[in-house]
Amino acid sequence: MNLWHISEDIFNPQTLHSQETVYTIGNGYFGTRGTFSEGYPGATPATLLYGVFDKIPIGKEELANAPDWTLLKLFVNGERFRLDQGEILAFERSLDIHHGILSRTVRWKSPGGMDLKIVSERFASLADEHVGAIHYSVTSEDNSEDLDVVLWASLNTAVGNYELMHWETVDQGNNGEIIWLHTQTLHSHVQLAQSMSFIADTSAFEQTVFDSDIAPSIRLRGKLAPGATVTTEKIVVMYSSRDGETPVLSAVEHHKHLVHSTDNGYKAAVPEENAQAQKHMSQAYTTLLTQHKQAWLDYWQSSDIIIEGDDKAQIAIRYNIYQLRISASPHDDRYSIAAKGLTGFGYRGHIFHDTEIFMLPYFTYVHPSIARNLVLYRYHLLPGARKKAKQSGYKGAQYPWESTLDGDEATPGTIIHPESGELIPVLNGTIELHITASIAHGAWQYWDISGDDEFMREYGAEILLSTAQFWASRAEHNPKHNDYVIDDVIGPDEWHEHVNNNAFTNYMARWNIQTALDILDWLYETAPNKATELTQQLDVNKQDLDHWRDVVALMRIPQNKATGLIEQFDGFFNLEPLNQKLYEGRTASYQALLGMQQVQKHQIVKQADVLMLLTVLDDQFDLATKKVNWDYYYPITDHDYGSSLTPALHAILACELGQVATAYKQYILGALVDLENLRGNTPEGIHDACSGAVWQATILGFAGLRLTRDGYTTSPSWPDGWTRLAFTFMHKGQTIKVDLHKE
Amino acid sequence: MNLWHISEDIFNPQTLHSQETVYTIGNGYFGTRGTFSEGYPGATPATLLYGVFDKIPIGKEELANAPDWTLLKLFVNGERFRLDQGEILAFERSLDIHHGILSRTVRWKSPGGMDLKIVSERFASLADEHVGAIHYSVTSEDNSEDLDVVLWASLNTAVGNYELMHWETVDQGNNGEIIWLHTQTLHSHVQLAQSMSFIADTSAFEQTVFDSDIAPSIRLRGKLAPGATVTTEKIVVMYSSRDGETPVLSAVEHHKHLVHSTDNGYKAAVPEENAQAQKHMSQAYTTLLTQHKQAWLDYWQSSDIIIEGDDKAQIAIRYNIYQLRISASPHDDRYSIAAKGLTGFGYRGHIFHDTEIFMLPYFTYVHPSIARNLVLYRYHLLPGARKKAKQSGYKGAQYPWESTLDGDEATPGTIIHPESGELIPVLNGTIELHITASIAHGAWQYWDISGDDEFMREYGAEILLSTAQFWASRAEHNPKHNDYVIDDVIGPDEWHEHVNNNAFTNYMARWNIQTALDILDWLYETAPNKATELTQQLDVNKQDLDHWRDVVALMRIPQNKATGLIEQFDGFFNLEPLNQKLYEGRTASYQALLGMQQVQKHQIVKQADVLMLLTVLDDQFDLATKKVNWDYYYPITDHDYGSSLTPALHAILACELGQVATAYKQYILGALVDLENLRGNTPEGIHDACSGAVWQATILGFAGLRLTRDGYTTSPSWPDGWTRLAFTFMHKGQTIKVDLHKE
Repeated sequence: MNLWHISEDIFNPQTLHSQETVYTIGNGYFGTRGTFSEGYPGATPATLLYGVFDKIPIGKEELANAPDWTLLKLFVNGERFRLDQGEILAFERSLDIHHGILSRTVRWKSPGGMDLKIVSERFASLADEHVGAIHYSVTSEDNSEDLDVVLWASLNTAVGNYELMHWETVDQGNNGEIIWLHTQTLHSHVQLAQSMSFIADTSAFEQTVFDSDIAPSIRLRGKLAPGATVTTEKIVVMYSSRDGETPVLSAVEHHKHLVHSTDNGYKAAVPEENAQAQKHMSQAYTTLLTQHKQAWLDYWQSSDIIIEGDDKAQIAIRYNIYQLRISASPHDDRYSIAAKGLTGFGYRGHIFHDTEIFMLPYFTYVHPSIARNLVLYRYHLLPGARKKAKQSGYKGAQYPWESTLDGDEATPGTIIHPESGELIPVLNGTIELHITASIAHGAWQYWDISGDDEFMREYGAEILLSTAQFWASRAEHNPKHNDYVIDDVIGPDEWHEHVNNNAFTNYMARWNIQTALDILDWLYETAPNKATELTQQLDVNKQDLDHWRDVVALMRIPQNKATGLIEQFDGFFNLEPLNQKLYEGRTASYQALLGMQQVQKHQIVKQADVLMLLTVLDDQFDLATKKVNWDYYYPITDHDYGSSLTPALHAILACELGQVATAYKQYILGALVDLENLRGNTPEGIHDACSGAVWQATILGFAGLRLTRDGYTTSPSWPDGWTRLAFTFMHKGQTIKVDLHKE
Repeated sequence: MNLWHISEDIFNPQTLHSQETVYTIGNGYFGTRGTFSEGYPGATPATLLYGVFDKIPIGKEELANAPDWTLLKLFVNGERFRLDQGEILAFERSLDIHHGILSRTVRWKSPGGMDLKIVSERFASLADEHVGAIHYSVTSEDNSEDLDVVLWASLNTAVGNYELMHWETVDQGNNGEIIWLHTQTLHSHVQLAQSMSFIADTSAFEQTVFDSDIAPSIRLRGKLAPGATVTTEKIVVMYSSRDGETPVLSAVEHHKHLVHSTDNGYKAAVPEENAQAQKHMSQAYTTLLTQHKQAWLDYWQSSDIIIEGDDKAQIAIRYNIYQLRISASPHDDRYSIAAKGLTGFGYRGHIFHDTEIFMLPYFTYVHPSIARNLVLYRYHLLPGARKKAKQSGYKGAQYPWESTLDGDEATPGTIIHPESGELIPVLNGTIELHITASIAHGAWQYWDISGDDEFMREYGAEILLSTAQFWASRAEHNPKHNDYVIDDVIGPDEWHEHVNNNAFTNYMARWNIQTALDILDWLYETAPNKATELTQQLDVNKQDLDHWRDVVALMRIPQNKATGLIEQFDGFFNLEPLNQKLYEGRTASYQALLGMQQVQKHQIVKQADVLMLLTVLDDQFDLATKKVNWDYYYPITDHDYGSSLTPALHAILACELGQVATAYKQYILGALVDLENLRGNTPEGIHDACSGAVWQATILGFAGLRLTRDGYTTSPSWPDGWTRLAFTFMHKGQTIKVDLHKE
């Protein structure tokens, strides 16, 4: 068993769409779903580029599925190879996450009786993020005569986000060896250039270039003798107007450089004008592949986690770490990691609080330079967040619940129920507030762990102060109890709407204001001019700061002083308990079973809420408090059909409380959520937040890593079988390697 | 000036989309917008097939834009011909509605300096409704050397309804001379086969066939000597699964028959396998064209209206009659004429009351066999209409406000405002009821004019009785006034919602019930067994009929007995008058200016409501009543930005009242609504209801045609300049030619 390979040796059409997601390749600049190059009925090919959006009717905008660069059709003696035709004699597909390569080997008997072996591999270069490449070979097996082989490589504009098209062709051309396509999104007018070359390893295959607005193509055609193999290579370069003003020029120049062409200039050419211009560029593919593999090996050098004694967990944790990398860009701070990364159409490429709570810690601990980009993205949203706060009647910055390229709220006001077609109002954009504190926390934690003071001075402090301003204006003074309340919100447990004083929200808001006060002190100490400038710019005066202190001192936190039990929100304990035994064997969430109205009346929790608070602000609660709350909330959470965000997060707390078996059970639910399509929605994309939570569960849970003033501590919990747990992280610029062995 | 040609001699990119609509060709089986075959940036190519729908997120389903059959790209010496490139030296486009042919001549200088003349024509065969054909020739003008000419003809799947895609490729292939594409809609799974041939008039042009899932193509390539011309012909055949179970076989066999091929069978072939299979099939095009032209001449034989003395009106009336024909099928009673026919995406191919009130009379008077199809369509909706009545708590049949292929309501419950993104509730599907009476009236009128007793016996009576059942159960007895009221509706004037006793609705409902009683008497007289069977089937007993008579006798009609003035609905006269002078020079409707709430409080009318009643039930009101109501309502109607349905309809009443100048002014507003894009929304499709109203205004208005027991009368009104008005209609199976001359 190779502990770096996600593999299958049977092609099952039933799992077509979830496996398309699982076999996604990417590099943070683009992600490409694992569809077959030859096409398949009902397939969902998608290439999503980091931050490339187009408008949609409901929900602002979505990542716009780019023209498909993978299309490569094979005809042999006039018969088309596709997996729904003929007979599959052998099939093997494997994603090598060590090197970021997706490969497939098929032995196939055509409907007409020819035997072929087709071997392909593809990658999205991690070394050169504009480049995707496919290696494709065809062998004539057990055939007695020469075969007429035709291979068509195309860039295909006839794709959409499901059925919604986003691109139109602006222009198209070729220079004989490279064909290019210039498209733009229909509404946002993002320009995209894709250039393509396609060659065979033998000049016996004739190359012809076909211009087209719809699917510009290069064709290779030749004879294949019995037992012989033809090998082809398709290289694609992509640039968008997010990269610069001349994407077509950039793509073609870059492409020419790759294939060592000495041509200059390119032009539209009639088909076949350069039919004889075939080049042998296989050196280009080999070089690209070598650099790409090295880049992945470099990544794993700092990112790998070794789990000995549990192969399933070993592969799964690596797969989750692979996913985190291909969803984030090391070079772009204008966008962040979407709920589904670049792997599918779910949540339309929008960014939620998931990024800060679940994914950011991985980057903060392991790849601080990427973490910095993710936090700077939120800094860039501040103007929009200020506008949102103002529109809601508050001060400071209120972050949108869903965001895209700016700080404008991207949560749809209403969605269409996928089955009933009913319109359902969505309140999250209006009253789910806690994301604002989560973003402040993420920025603070990035600074705390990285020690990146320049960041805190120039950007972080402004995030913290602006969010504190929001909370201090949002909290209302209640004269009867002389405390501050935050009414009418949705907490992390979204099954309860319009609640007052959600503990997570209030506690995080208080933390946010207090931390802003602390950071302001730090700023006055370390950069007094900046402190003065910032408070003036944000219009924060002494009275404001006194008010902030008042809010911190008097914020209502619904907690039983004697037992430490926290009430999720005002009145939660008065709701009806739910007899979960009545629902044994269910295959849907409690919300689906009870209905949106009924579920609100019960003590049943969609996802960690109080327990998430105890995890995120781990150092603010003692073990006894954690225990009493765990005992209350863990049993009343919908672990199976609630949120995918929960299981791995629960594992951290379970480890702290010594419940390793429970921790492991929850951990595996998170680690395999997509590899085994446990929630049935993997076709819509990878659960990236779950990947981040799985990393946290491994390091903060099982390894028990905690940072201190003096360095770090670990306190490992060992699930059955685990004998070694090794990983690397960074603290204040220092690389730290941890290698734990079970005694 | 040719009085059969819609022409332009300048290409204006500003009017691209409205002219695409204006230059639509069609035959009732399919309609194809007048986009350029060579493509143009931002163009909206569309081919809509009668009754071919696919599901959409809001509003049930829409006519699904089929793969574009018109695409034909020209490259000369590697330069692509498109009207946004190079220099247009001369341009002429003309739609010959006499023969149903769209033609274009362009003299063009390429960016590289070559001079070309390109002449093209296309038609949708009226003689063979599955066939579309293009004739395309290229002449080398003022060039000194041979030109390398490449022509690509394709079937292009990369199209959508705007950006919503509806088709996926099932299969594709060729038999050497004919290439075919088999697609299906994504949700409704309608199968569509399109076959294509493409030939040149000289064997010096080499033909090559290119298979593709995305855009299967045939290429012609050759040299063009200075001064020489190459002429090509593209023929496409289309069949869908609405036509039979084997659309691909049907299309290919039909196509082979057309091109006199003796091949049998077809198969997928590798590209160029049949490169030498080029045929000279121009006989096919000539034959098709001849038959097509003859079919149009036959159509005009019975359909033309001659207006002498007013060329603008002459062309416009013919254009409107052209549009009515290309929107309706003589061979299909499972669908009817959509608001925009087959000419654009507006209203998504849904069918409204427009069809019965505005368009049906043309067909009833001139093409009763098509009228029968349109009425039978409504008969087929009865099960859905009964379901709707039942769901609303009523008896009988309540027709949906918008319908597609069945009687299920297709009006969206909510729409998204195109600019603000706001969700706006749409009440029409729930409370705009008058369509049910309009359908009953249309069915009755078809019978009354055609004398088709078999229709009335087998279908019409069931429509009349079922709709009467609905109205009798919908009307509520008001004990205080001892009358029947119909509360909480929207009348034809949709700017006033939730009104009580809309005069149009109540009067038409009463007419509907009374006519049902009359028809039942007729049925008992002429086919007593059928009468018994039908009343049993519909569960109509003696008590019911007594109740119906009671409703007829006591229906509230808000009319001043002394003056004859009808109140549009209860309390309309108490609404605030609107000082229209304050809005002079406006460029938007009063609803847009006042807002949806404010407009309801004013006496301002979107479209003919009381005045429509006086027109539809013309014989039930005397001239004095018409006059008093005209004087009241005409001035308070938004003639310019209300509904396009109104102007031509007003012309009828104006003629009766002797106000010929006003009649003519309104008539022209209707007649030119699309030719001059008077309402700015011609890009979304032709105003088909307006076309029908223009016909009515000409015949019932200016000619003053009225049918009587003894035959017919005319009472012409002569606008300035008009000297002759001649037309043909049918009455009880007799063809009647009318030729009026101004004395």
